[in-house]
Amino acid sequence: MNYHGGNIYDKNKNLVDFSSNINPLGIPESFQKALFCHIDVFTKYPDINYNRLKQSIGNYINTDSSNIIVGNGAVNIIYHLAKCFPVSKAVIAVPTFSEYKRAMETAGIEVVEKEIFDFDKMTFDLSILEKEIERDAVYIVCNPNNPTGSLLEQDKMQNFAQILEQFHSFLLVDEAFMDFVFEPQKYSVLKFLKEHQNVVVVRAATKFFGMPGIRLGYGVTTNKELFNKIEKLAEPWNINAAAELAGSVIFQDRDYIAKTKKWIEEERCHMGQLLKEINGLFIFPTAANFYLVQIENRKIYVELVYKKMIQKGYLIRTPNGFIGLDKQFFRVAIKGRQDNINFCKALKKVMTNLLEDCK
Amino acid sequence: MNYHGGNIYDKNKNLVDFSSNINPLGIPESFQKALFCHIDVFTKYPDINYNRLKQSIGNYINTDSSNIIVGNGAVNIIYHLAKCFPVSKAVIAVPTFSEYKRAMETAGIEVVEKEIFDFDKMTFDLSILEKEIERDAVYIVCNPNNPTGSLLEQDKMQNFAQILEQFHSFLLVDEAFMDFVFEPQKYSVLKFLKEHQNVVVVRAATKFFGMPGIRLGYGVTTNKELFNKIEKLAEPWNINAAAELAGSVIFQDRDYIAKTKKWIEEERCHMGQLLKEINGLFIFPTAANFYLVQIENRKIYVELVYKKMIQKGYLIRTPNGFIGLDKQFFRVAIKGRQDNINFCKALKKVMTNLLEDCK
Repeated sequence: MNYHGGNIYDKNKNLVDFSSNINPLGIPESFQKALFCHIDVFTKYPDINYNRLKQSIGNYINTDSSNIIVGNGAVNIIYHLAKCFPVSKAVIAVPTFSEYKRAMETAGIEVVEKEIFDFDKMTFDLSILEKEIERDAVYIVCNPNNPTGSLLEQDKMQNFAQILEQFHSFLLVDEAFMDFVFEPQKYSVLKFLKEHQNVVVVRAATKFFGMPGIRLGYGVTTNKELFNKIEKLAEPWNINAAAELAGSVIFQDRDYIAKTKKWIEEERCHMGQLLKEINGLFIFPTAANFYLVQIENRKIYVELVYKKMIQKGYLIRTPNGFIGLDKQFFRVAIKGRQDNINFCKALKKVMTNLLEDCK
Repeated sequence: MNYHGGNIYDKNKNLVDFSSNINPLGIPESFQKALFCHIDVFTKYPDINYNRLKQSIGNYINTDSSNIIVGNGAVNIIYHLAKCFPVSKAVIAVPTFSEYKRAMETAGIEVVEKEIFDFDKMTFDLSILEKEIERDAVYIVCNPNNPTGSLLEQDKMQNFAQILEQFHSFLLVDEAFMDFVFEPQKYSVLKFLKEHQNVVVVRAATKFFGMPGIRLGYGVTTNKELFNKIEKLAEPWNINAAAELAGSVIFQDRDYIAKTKKWIEEERCHMGQLLKEINGLFIFPTAANFYLVQIENRKIYVELVYKKMIQKGYLIRTPNGFIGLDKQFFRVAIKGRQDNINFCKALKKVMTNLLEDCK
């Protein structure tokens, strides 16, 4: 099994987990109430067609529910897509999350990693890909990108989709963190899916809603051929009753959504300031709910920072679980104000000591 | 999507569902308590290795946890196995559940259906299969079989496994309903897995515990090559947090297990008597928590009985979702005493009227 964040199971349970990016506001009350009132959802098989769930997601993202695929987490949809794309090659924009590669390889698709992160502009540069487009391929772009936090504009994505279309190639966009973006509708590819049948977007429903354990993801495409292929492949009841129930309430929980938007706007800014005050680190700008951090001194390895931070009670995310990222980088989640302050204090101390040792 | 039982979502919600075989004792209190006390399990990713869950299952079935595969429902494991068996052909003992066929075909394996139900002895006759064994194939047998309710003896299964071994063939046994059998340890293939590495058993953890909505299944094999292949293929976090939590408590809930065993022993016998008193029906003996019923008069189609029973407020299981079963059969669940009595009364009336119309 690959390495991922949030793996607190082989560690001291008292660690504060800055390695996985989960909304610190916790479980929406609307879901807690629904679960306690409807605990008997577990006694029935879920709706094999997930009609109500798809409708609820459709309302939330303002999309016809007939274009929506649901899955046991976003990762599950990516694995299914890998088996359905009529392609022989996948081009992955890196650095990024490692599961795209694993999903494509498991489906027997050749994977090419393309390093397109522009370290001057601090964002993905699609023009690098556009110079040499592969025919009958799927291009995979995470937006905002995990772990860089960078965000691509809608018009750039649409232009790229258009070019790919001419080469019979697909664009798979992972928008797992799009809900955390300020004004996501201005960035999401959802807006132009109707015009581009070669585009598929995948989202994790439960990151923003603080419940990765519930396993609920969704995908959207207007490509009926691809859609039908995936539906045909889907295992029956692949989404559990708790996720089905959550999906019927959380997307309408305006209060939770508003609170989360307020929290991320405030804490993204505040934590960014705190991190920037720490010597020896470069902090990448982010549109998501995490920061990518680079250790400037090449003598200081991330494993060292990782170990020292564990001693202080904090778990950070090392480059394991990502492709295209070297050993100078780590990722930290944005949490509640006091946690962020304490974490940054601890990190400052660790870095001060390590820089001292290097002198 | 295929047809299955329990699909009450496109029907009147007031129907009593005799189409899906779920423990009427409901959700174990141990799980309800655990969920209400640990609702925050949803805020974390599940353990990517599911160590504790595997340990708990291992204790329950008295098997080393290193031989246990866990999945998002038993069906999920069957789909994964289909991709991992080093075979080109699957031989399915029918009549049986349709998902084996769908899983094998989805994985590109040629499927052969072998009708081996002996209508005189009311059980599967493995000797039909043994006459002509396929090399490099997987044989799939559901035991007790869904929907016939018939049960094969351990020594017959072991003998069959031995024969298959000589032909480099595998035996996949679906024991989804084994927990409902009287003295299951005398019938389960678990007993001889150590000696036969060509055998894999799959079980649904949550049928017996009244919670199909939770999606938890497990498989057991001592074949390390096959085991590693499946583990490599597994999507990360494919079991949700509610299922993980359930797995850590329900298998130790002796009170619930004892109550369920008492219920099934009493009601299986009682309902069998009631059904046998209805004219025009043949009732197959069962070792599970359902009865297969055959309409003796060929002029009366199951759809007619289905419609009339819906009018009376009951859902029965038509042969949709099974292979090798013709239109004269239906399956009914065993529920609580009063529900069973009311159901049998309604069925008796329906059959009396239909037989009257045939005269």
